[in-house]
Amino acid sequence: MKSKAIQDLYPDHLAYCYGCGRNNKDGLHLKTYLAGDETVAHFTPDEKFTALPGSVYGGLVASLLDCHGTGSAAAFVCQQEGIPMEQAPIPVRCVTASLKVDFKAPTPMGRLLELRGKLRSIDGRKIWVDMTLSADGDICATGEILAIRIRD
Amino acid sequence: MKSKAIQDLYPDHLAYCYGCGRNNKDGLHLKTYLAGDETVAHFTPDEKFTALPGSVYGGLVASLLDCHGTGSAAAFVCQQEGIPMEQAPIPVRCVTASLKVDFKAPTPMGRLLELRGKLRSIDGRKIWVDMTLSADGDICATGEILAIRIRD
Repeated sequence: MKSKAIQDLYPDHLAYCYGCGRNNKDGLHLKTYLAGDETVAHFTPDEKFTALPGSVYGGLVASLLDCHGTGSAAAFVCQQEGIPMEQAPIPVRCVTASLKVDFKAPTPMGRLLELRGKLRSIDGRKIWVDMTLSADGDICATGEILAIRIRD
Repeated sequence: MKSKAIQDLYPDHLAYCYGCGRNNKDGLHLKTYLAGDETVAHFTPDEKFTALPGSVYGGLVASLLDCHGTGSAAAFVCQQEGIPMEQAPIPVRCVTASLKVDFKAPTPMGRLLELRGKLRSIDGRKIWVDMTLSADGDICATGEILAIRIRD
């Protein structure tokens, strides 16, 4: 059984991110779930987020990887510290220090995209996560994030 | 005197990018100009593109650097090959192979952001560009892009 989405557990005042904040009425509302030792999120881009015709623009791909990355980092911290992911607010929120995206193939428009994250390592407030973004099982992009856990 | 924006010179059917395409009615319409041996673009984010309160979300920062990066790459190719940047369409359009963004400080909301690009090198269809994104002269993020010139 999947946990709750990590973004639904952020404190209210830290849940306004355009990419994944539940309190941003204009936002994308990406939801990242812990699933075993990985994280997963799904998203179907609106047609307006076009790059070249038929493909999703790279900025959205980077945005999804950014939000899935900080969400994954928070989820892995919760998992490692035994923080229950059942009720908001959790005492963990991360921001991005560095994001690298490698575009392997055009990301097709109009398809359900799957993002997956794996923890590489945690060192104090620094969390590294490796990610993929795929459509129908084909990897369109890979991402690496260094996320920083913010202080309370 | 500044050149025309490179995005206003793309062929019509390649000008639908959400981040910078003049033909995308819902898009951000970033405009990249060649200015001497650099490129420059300016953008003021809408309030909806929030991250933590008061700052711009990383996905938008990455998006702006992505579009400024591919635009800069095309502009530098035109400059190097002596292609006039006066009338559309130009025979140059680039896409992103790899993008790295380092977030140096929160990007403040409600301010005019400046993006600058410098050519690192060109090798055949591969173009590397280094970028900064700043607000009031303070660098908020740096970016590195490997752009690929698409075939006609």
